[in-house]
Amino acid sequence: MEEVERRLSDALHRDFLFEKGRVLGSMCSKPEEIAVKYHALFSEANLGNRGLYPGTAMLEDELIADISELMHLRDGWGQFVGGGTEANITAMWIARNLSGKRKILAPESAHFSMRKAADLLAMELVDIPLTEEYVMDTDALSAAMDDDVAAVMAVAGTTELGAVDPIAEISDIAEDTFLHVDAAFGGMVLPFLEDMGMWKGDWDFRVEGVDSLSVDLHKMGMATVPSGILLLKDRRYVDSISVESPYLTTKRNIGLAGTRPSGSVAGAYAVVKTLGREGYREIVRKCMENTRYLVERMGEIGYEPVIEPIMNVVAFRTDRAEEIRAKMDEMGWKISSVRKPPAIRMVVMPYVTKEVIDGFTEALHGI
Amino acid sequence: MEEVERRLSDALHRDFLFEKGRVLGSMCSKPEEIAVKYHALFSEANLGNRGLYPGTAMLEDELIADISELMHLRDGWGQFVGGGTEANITAMWIARNLSGKRKILAPESAHFSMRKAADLLAMELVDIPLTEEYVMDTDALSAAMDDDVAAVMAVAGTTELGAVDPIAEISDIAEDTFLHVDAAFGGMVLPFLEDMGMWKGDWDFRVEGVDSLSVDLHKMGMATVPSGILLLKDRRYVDSISVESPYLTTKRNIGLAGTRPSGSVAGAYAVVKTLGREGYREIVRKCMENTRYLVERMGEIGYEPVIEPIMNVVAFRTDRAEEIRAKMDEMGWKISSVRKPPAIRMVVMPYVTKEVIDGFTEALHGI
Repeated sequence: MEEVERRLSDALHRDFLFEKGRVLGSMCSKPEEIAVKYHALFSEANLGNRGLYPGTAMLEDELIADISELMHLRDGWGQFVGGGTEANITAMWIARNLSGKRKILAPESAHFSMRKAADLLAMELVDIPLTEEYVMDTDALSAAMDDDVAAVMAVAGTTELGAVDPIAEISDIAEDTFLHVDAAFGGMVLPFLEDMGMWKGDWDFRVEGVDSLSVDLHKMGMATVPSGILLLKDRRYVDSISVESPYLTTKRNIGLAGTRPSGSVAGAYAVVKTLGREGYREIVRKCMENTRYLVERMGEIGYEPVIEPIMNVVAFRTDRAEEIRAKMDEMGWKISSVRKPPAIRMVVMPYVTKEVIDGFTEALHGI
Repeated sequence: MEEVERRLSDALHRDFLFEKGRVLGSMCSKPEEIAVKYHALFSEANLGNRGLYPGTAMLEDELIADISELMHLRDGWGQFVGGGTEANITAMWIARNLSGKRKILAPESAHFSMRKAADLLAMELVDIPLTEEYVMDTDALSAAMDDDVAAVMAVAGTTELGAVDPIAEISDIAEDTFLHVDAAFGGMVLPFLEDMGMWKGDWDFRVEGVDSLSVDLHKMGMATVPSGILLLKDRRYVDSISVESPYLTTKRNIGLAGTRPSGSVAGAYAVVKTLGREGYREIVRKCMENTRYLVERMGEIGYEPVIEPIMNVVAFRTDRAEEIRAKMDEMGWKISSVRKPPAIRMVVMPYVTKEVIDGFTEALHGI
C-alpha cells in the first residue's frame, strides 16, 4: 500500500503540472477545486444509464440549459460528451446520417479530430484554404459546395491561432447543409469578450444556419476532464444516432459513449454556478491582459504575432519553430509549434501569469 | 455558493447510489475510495497530450502491462479508453481499416454498442444466432463467413446473462479474420474464477487468433469511470487509426478520443495495485457466493435462472419481465429485463449483500 502510494506520488511529481507554470502549450486548465471536489463525490454516477441517477441527470439538464443560453440556443438539445473530438465526430455522424451524403468541408485550420471523424465515418474531408487572416476562405467554400456535401464545419477559436471563421457568411453559403461550429476552446471565451466589448461577431446559434456547436468546459470552463458539451439546434437530430438499449433504464441510447463519465457533470455544475458570468469574465479579462503582456514581451525580443490575438491563444512567426520548441522543451518549457505559417504557439491559460511570461521570454531570449 | 452546494447535495440524494443497495441492474461498481482519491489528485492529467504528463503516462504503461499479463498478452499494445463502447468501436475501426472489408459477425447477445459501431463505421452488423446455452452458434458462424467479413467478435461475459462464447472454436473458424473479444465485464471476473478453480475455458489471448480485447476497470475492477482498456495483439494495428497531431507533444494521435480523461488512470493504478490478485479473488468469491444465494432465494419463490450463472450476472425466466421491472422500480428496486428469453436480470455487484438480496426477494414475492 505504502509502496503504491509512493509510486503514485512520484508520478504526480513527474507530470508537468500547471502549478509549475511552465506549460504554455496546453488548452486544458487546472480545474477549480470545487469542480474536483464534486467530481469525486459523484464519481459513481453514469449518465449512460440515466434513470439510475436522476440527481445527476437534473444537474446535466440544468447546466445544458445554462450553456445553451450562453450560446443563444433555444429549444435545442445538448449532452455532456468526452470532449471536442467526440463532439466533432458526433456532429459529423448526425450530418452523414441525416443527409446520406459523404463530404465534409472544413477549413485547413480545423482541429485534427476532423480527420479522425472523416476516417471513422467513411466520409471525405475536403480542406478549404484560409485567407490571409487565417480564417476559412468563403470564396473557396462556395466553389467547393456540391450535391455530395453532408456538412460544413467552422471554427470559433482555432487551436493554432484562436481565429474565428466568418460563421454568418459561411452559413449563408451552406444554406440548408448541416453546419457545425467547433467552439471547444472559444465557446467559453467569446461570450465574455463580447460582454466586455473586446470582440464582436456572430459565431453561435444567433447565426440561423448553425445546427450544432461544441464547447469544452474542461478548457476555459475550469472544470474537470471530460466536460465536453455538444449542442444541437433540433432535438430530433438525435434520432439519427440512437440505438436501442434494452436492459438500461432508458429505451434508447444516444450518442457515441456507453458509460458516460458523469462525475464531471457535477464538477462542471459546481464551477459554472459558483463562478457565474462575472467570474468567467474576470478570468478571460486576466488571460487577455496576460496575452497582451506576452505579445509585448515577445516584441521586445523580436517576435511578431501571426495575427493580432483575438483570444488567449497566440502564435509568433519564426522559421526555427521546431528547433525552438525542442530547445525550450529541454529547459522544461512546454510550447507548441505551428506549421503554416511556421510559428511557435502559446496558450495563455489562467495559470500563465506575468511572472511565468517573464521567465519564459527570458529563457527564449537566451537560446 | 451555499445555494449551489445545497443543490448539488440534493442531486446526490436523488441518485440511486449504490450505498442504498437497491440497484441490482448496474454493471458499474462503487469505486474504491483510494481510486476516487487518486483520480482527484490527477484530475488535470490529459494523456491525449502524453508528453506533458510523463508521470501519468508511466502509470498507464505499468497498468497496461499488468492487465496484459492478466489477459495473457505478450508484446502487445494497450490504452485506456472511455469504456467498453469506445473499445468495441475502436476495435472494429481497426478491423475495417486493416481489411478494407465491411461485415462484422457478432452473436445476438453482443452489447448494443456493436450496433453503434456498425452504424458509425458504415459497416454491416450480421447477427449470429445463439445456441440453447445462449452462446454464439459456431455452425451459424461458419455458414456466415465470406470474403467481405472484416471482423468477428465474441463476448466473454454477456451483458444479459454473463455467458462466455466458445472463443477457441470461434477463433478456428475465423482463421485470419480479425477477432475481437468483448470482456468489458468478464475480464475482471474470469481470471479470478479460474484462480479459484470455479471456471475453466479459453477466452483471452491464450487463444491464438484473438486480435483485440476490451475490459472495463470501472465495472468489476472497482475503479472510477472512465477506466476502459483496449488491448491489441500487435502494436502495428494502431497505425491504421492514427492521425497527425502537429501541435501536441506527440506527433501522432492514436484512437478515438482527443483529450483523454486520465485521472482515472491513477485511480485504477491505485486500486489494482492495492487490491492485487488476491483482493480481486476475494471480491469475486464473495459476489459468486451472493449470486448463488440469490439463485437459492429466487428458487424459493418460484424463479428459475435462464442459465446456471457463470459469473455474477443472472437472469430469471418470466413472461412478466417488463411488468415486474416496472413494479419493482416503483418500489425503488432497480433491475433490468431481458427480451430473449423473457427474463428479469440482476447483477450481483460487491455492494449487493445477502441482506439486500433478502429485501429484494421479499419485495419481489409480494408483487
